[in-house]
Amino acid sequence: MVTRRCVFAANENAGKLRPMDHPVVLKPAEHAAWRPDKMGKSTLFESPRLMVGLNAFEPGQSHALHAHAGMDKLYFVVEGEGLFLLDGSELSMRAGDVLVAPEGVPHGVTNPSGARLLVLAVLAPSPRS
Amino acid sequence: MVTRRCVFAANENAGKLRPMDHPVVLKPAEHAAWRPDKMGKSTLFESPRLMVGLNAFEPGQSHALHAHAGMDKLYFVVEGEGLFLLDGSELSMRAGDVLVAPEGVPHGVTNPSGARLLVLAVLAPSPRS
Repeated sequence: MVTRRCVFAANENAGKLRPMDHPVVLKPAEHAAWRPDKMGKSTLFESPRLMVGLNAFEPGQSHALHAHAGMDKLYFVVEGEGLFLLDGSELSMRAGDVLVAPEGVPHGVTNPSGARLLVLAVLAPSPRS
Repeated sequence: MVTRRCVFAANENAGKLRPMDHPVVLKPAEHAAWRPDKMGKSTLFESPRLMVGLNAFEPGQSHALHAHAGMDKLYFVVEGEGLFLLDGSELSMRAGDVLVAPEGVPHGVTNPSGARLLVLAVLAPSPRS
């Protein structure tokens, strides 16, 4: 049996995970968890090997600089534009752009624009593995 | 020291990997390896934990049904539209759509459209780890 879990728009702060069956085509924008107080997180897929989530930034919101020991992170900008901090650099990114933060490399995101910024964030292995 | 490798448009068939320094913002379309004879592959990032690549399908090209033991795959459609086979289903996907093929689940892609199909393919852990 294949052990897997895939959830729709699971707000990590609410602690609610709604399991779903495969296969399903996911349209990221439908699963973003926008919050007025801070960056919203949702999870699209999770296994011990891989976590696929969304980070939703309203204008002015950010994700502070942090690093993951033993985990690589891939960012894909789904919607909007923002500034990505990586390895001492500040990088401007917009919809369609990709960035990788290899394990141990500090990274963060801020949305100084006047529009929403939606980012697909992929972690391998999963932080919950 | 962080062990990592990141390459630009490395055509796996040519066996050439051009190392590059971080950080860099990647624009997937600039690194696609289009081939007239079959689906083209390129690698954007690779570590033991994560492999980020591009699959480039000219009209009519496909990637035969296959499965990865112990590896999850994430597909993100960058450009165009195509049919994705997963777990016995045929799913129509277009730019912006996401699909996960959990470990062991057979998957494949075909491009029956008249336009190019570019797909970001993420494997965790890396098949070369």
